[in-house]
Formats: sequence, structure tokens, C-alpha cells
Amino acid sequence: MEKEITIYDIAKQLNISPATVSRALNDHPAINNATKSLIASTAREMGYRINPFASSLRKKRTNTLGVIVPRLNSYFMSTVLAGMEKEANEASYNLIISQSMESFKKEITNARTMFDSRVDGLLVSLAFDTEDLEHFEPFLKRNIPLLFFDRVMSHNQSTSIIIDNVRAGYEVTNHLISQGSQRIMHVTGSLKRNVYADRLKGYQLALTEAGIAYDDSLVKVTDLGMDTGQWVVQQIQEMLLPPDGLFVANDFCAVSCMSALKRAGYSVPQDVAVAGFNNDPLSQVVEPNLTTIHYPGYEMGEIAVKSLISHLNGVSASHATNTIILRSELIVRESSLRLSSK
Amino acid sequence: MEKEITIYDIAKQLNISPATVSRALNDHPAINNATKSLIASTAREMGYRINPFASSLRKKRTNTLGVIVPRLNSYFMSTVLAGMEKEANEASYNLIISQSMESFKKEITNARTMFDSRVDGLLVSLAFDTEDLEHFEPFLKRNIPLLFFDRVMSHNQSTSIIIDNVRAGYEVTNHLISQGSQRIMHVTGSLKRNVYADRLKGYQLALTEAGIAYDDSLVKVTDLGMDTGQWVVQQIQEMLLPPDGLFVANDFCAVSCMSALKRAGYSVPQDVAVAGFNNDPLSQVVEPNLTTIHYPGYEMGEIAVKSLISHLNGVSASHATNTIILRSELIVRESSLRLSSK
Repeated sequence: MEKEITIYDIAKQLNISPATVSRALNDHPAINNATKSLIASTAREMGYRINPFASSLRKKRTNTLGVIVPRLNSYFMSTVLAGMEKEANEASYNLIISQSMESFKKEITNARTMFDSRVDGLLVSLAFDTEDLEHFEPFLKRNIPLLFFDRVMSHNQSTSIIIDNVRAGYEVTNHLISQGSQRIMHVTGSLKRNVYADRLKGYQLALTEAGIAYDDSLVKVTDLGMDTGQWVVQQIQEMLLPPDGLFVANDFCAVSCMSALKRAGYSVPQDVAVAGFNNDPLSQVVEPNLTTIHYPGYEMGEIAVKSLISHLNGVSASHATNTIILRSELIVRESSLRLSSK
Repeated sequence: MEKEITIYDIAKQLNISPATVSRALNDHPAINNATKSLIASTAREMGYRINPFASSLRKKRTNTLGVIVPRLNSYFMSTVLAGMEKEANEASYNLIISQSMESFKKEITNARTMFDSRVDGLLVSLAFDTEDLEHFEPFLKRNIPLLFFDRVMSHNQSTSIIIDNVRAGYEVTNHLISQGSQRIMHVTGSLKRNVYADRLKGYQLALTEAGIAYDDSLVKVTDLGMDTGQWVVQQIQEMLLPPDGLFVANDFCAVSCMSALKRAGYSVPQDVAVAGFNNDPLSQVVEPNLTTIHYPGYEMGEIAVKSLISHLNGVSASHATNTIILRSELIVRESSLRLSSK
């Protein structure tokens, strides 16, 4: 391995003192700009790089943020990560990214790795079956800020960034009712997670308001995977009173339901009006186009990193803003329009 | 901030020597297992963490790998990253991930950041307009291994992991010809990138073999984005001899073309047979289901990290295997089947 270039090498090359080199590289006001720029360009030419370890030991900062997500390969999550990376990059932070694979156990291991990697802050979206937040205690003990996004759990020492899932669930269901659906099935994920529990609440509220009795057998808890559509349609085919509306907690699964419905001879939206969640690009290419909720994933990623860095810089107190709620929006498309004025 | 726990604190707590604690934590054979397990559990209880900086300074290793991708929010790339994260995690490596946003300029900045972050190795998929590999020279000078995947550029000091894009492009085109298409349009991305240039070569080869004259006006270089379908169909509508086959370099864009075709009154596959690339889940939910190439993205991610780590551990020489080619596969579905034996 080649020898690491030091400030002493640069000083020797330019025939000036190492102290001057050090001050120039640290943008000290006592050094004039011409000298700074000469030293900076010489340093670059010689292949000098700052020593982040020495610098970290001094500042106790690594300029890295940890991110734990359920899965990397989901459209929604990759959009959030794209927003996070953009913000982090602009603020000269690196992102260390890991996935829990929807497992509480793996999430505990990930947290431990992030702690040992000395991240300056941690961003988390919880796995399907996470039961408590004990595995994040070591961070809080060391005042390493912790931020939850999308799938959150209430904690008085950390910020959460979410959308109003109750309201979004209410809006979708209310819209399906307004289009003449009376028996609406809700296909969702683990009710341990706020995002699914809250969408269910919104669904129930809309039914109550419309005077429709809540029927437990119409709520299906699934893994929201690719094969869920097939399974859901099997359930529907066995029902004496099949549903005339379907609210699915994500677009990917909604599209899988729509395909299975069509294969089984149901027409969408005439027999069954369908709505999803997330505004995945998928929703605009399936036919009929899918009614959904626009979820601001990219903005969520940007804001999550921005607020974590502000907190690290002492600009904002984490306790002041405990929850940030982003705006979501119902997008009505053909998959649910049964009373359109064509 | 709470005081960092050291081996001296653990030694004091257990009333043993710091040397014993250090040896136990480093799994030294001179310490018996009962003592090791007592020390390990005490260390964990007290919130001790290894000092990766001190350890890095000694080993000159950070146990982090850098990844530069064109965009995080693409289905294909998030699948590759999921495979990379799984492998890295199992080998106790962290991934630092950044995106070039398809810009050569941003890729240069990303490379600089990765270099300053002292990654042990770097995994890169090139941006649309990257012209040369000069920005990776600092890594090679320091013997930091560099691995390219998917979008690669030939370099005698680094490994590339790809699929045989010429063959895949040939297979798709050949299949379209076998289904009766004679005028096949090819919609692709920047021809500076091997993946698109090679698929075009495969397309040309299949035409030549079938005795069909190559027509430059049937090759459309685009950004392969969501709006490309609309633009492509406008081009088709202005042609005296419209195409009867369409080979699009990724599924996302192929689906956008298919939707635009259908809106414009063309039937798929009867008027225009369509094929994509990647086997995005999207391809199985659109109607008709999309003919495509299965691209082993997850496996590519796993193998990329595995071979980089083997190289770091001195198990494999990077020069021995300069290119790793993974198997891809044509998947025929309804979007291109015009002569099916129904």
C-alpha cells in the first residue's frame, strides 16, 4: 500500500510550515485566500485525504447516519432512500444502510451493528413484527438521536415522521362508498405497525359515518406480497356476499388483487371498485389506472435527514418536535370510478 | 455525552486485569470460555463498544464498502442493493450508498466522498454520461479494489460483473422475429453504456441472421423514463411503415410504451408485439403480461460483494477474474405471442 500523504509532506513540497498547511486546510482566517487555494490544490494533486479517524476522535463525529429499513427492494422505500441520500450528500454525511427483512430479530442485530459503527444518528422504519424499542436504548443512553419514519412507535425521546394514515384510510374508504360500494374489503399488513392499524381505523370511521356495519371478516391481514391477490380472490369466491369494493394497503398488492380479480372474471370497477396506497408508478400503468393515496416518500426522506442533521448541529431540539406529519392526497383514477359522468 | 466505557472499566468492575479483558474480547486462546463469556456479558451490560477508529488505525480497515449507483429509486437497482446488503451484513461489512443521479459530474463527487470515507472497496454502476474512469484512479493507486456491475467500463485492474447483453438482445429480437415481426423498433438508453450498446448489437445480429435490413430510424435513444411511451407512440404514428414489433431496453419503459400503444388504438401483441428487459414484477401485472429477460439482480448484488470481500481477504486475486458473466433468460409471455397454438 502506498504511503499516506500527510500535512508534513505538503509542507515540505511547498516549503512552508506544517502549521500553515493545517490552518489552511481547516479554513483558518489567519491564512490568506491565495495561500489557501495553493495549499488545497497541492494537497489534492498529492493525493492527500483528511484523516477522518483522527478527526472523529477529536470531534467524536463520524459524519455517518445509519438507516434501517424493512426491505431495500420496495418502490416506496427506495424513493425514501433517494430523498435521504440527496440531503445527506449535500450536508457531507454518508448513509450506512441496512435491511431488517421484516424481522424483529434481524432489526436488533442491525441496531447493534449501527451502534458499533458509531453512527451520529439513526433513521428507522420498523419491521412487521417488532415488539418494542429496547434495542435502541444504547443510542438514547449516548444521546445519539433516533428518528422513526413511516413505520414508527411512540417514544418521548425521538422524532417520528409520518403521514396521517387514519385520514388517508378514511378518504379512500369514503371515496369507495361515494362510488356506490357497500361491502368494502380491506387487505392490509401487520396491525402491530401504525401504518396498517391507522389505515384500518380510517376505514372503520368512514364505514361508521356512512352507517355501514363493520364486518370483521372483510378485513384480511396478509404479507401484502405478490401472491396475496390470488389468495384474496379465492376468499372472495368462497363468500356468499362478495365485496363490491377493495381497499388494499399498498399499490403493489392492489395491482396483484386487480389482476387476480380480472382473471377470475370480475370486472374492475363495475363488480369491484379497487383502491391502493402509495402512488407507485405501477398505479399509472395498470388498466384500469389505480385509485391511490399519494405518499410523499422522497420528501419524507429529505425531511428525515434534514431534521436529524439540524438536531446534530444543535439547531433544533428533538423534544420540541416529536411528530412531523406530511401531507398525503387521494388520487382518484378509473379503478374506482363507477359513477363517473361519462 | 456519557463517558465511553473502556476495557479498564470492565476490568475494574470484574476485579481482573485489563490485559485479560482485552484478550477475552479478542477471543484469545489463553482465556477459558467461562471467563470469556462472563467478560462479554459484562461488557455488553455496561454498554461497551469496540473502538473501530483505534482498530481501523491499526488494521487500516474500516469494514465499509462504498456503492455508487445511478439511481436508488429503480426496481432493478434496489434489488441489486438488497443482495449486496445481505452479503455485506453476513460478513460484518457496512455499505455506504450514494447515487450519481445519472450524472458524470455527480459521480466524480461521489467517488471523492467515498475515497475520503476510506471505504475498503468500491462497487460502481456507471451514470448515463460517464466518459472515463479517471475519477477512480485514487482508489487504484491505493490498491483499494474497485468492482463494476451492470453498467461497466473495461479496466484491467478491476472486476466487472455483467450479464451477456448481446446474447439477451439477440434472444429477444430473434423471438419477436419468430412471432412474425418484420419491422422491429428498438427503444433504448445512452449508447455510451455497455448494457444498451450491447443489447443493440444483439438486436442487429438477430436482424442480420434473419435477412432483415437494419434501419437506423427504428432505433430510438431515450432516457427510458415514464413519458417515453407517449413519445415513442407519437413517432410511430408519424411513420409511413409503422413497426410491428417493439423491443424496449427496460420493463418500466416497455410498460409505458404498451399503455400508450393501447390508448392510441393499437392492439398488443396483434398490431405490435412488445418485449422488455429485467423481469420487473411490473411485467407480470400488466396486461397482456410482458415478455422480458430475467435479469438476476439480487444474485448480482450478492456475488459483487462476495468477490470484493474475497479479494480484500486475499482469497482471490482481482486480476484472475476480470469479468464475471451471470446467466440471463428469455421469458416469453402474452405481449409478444402472435403465433401461439391457442
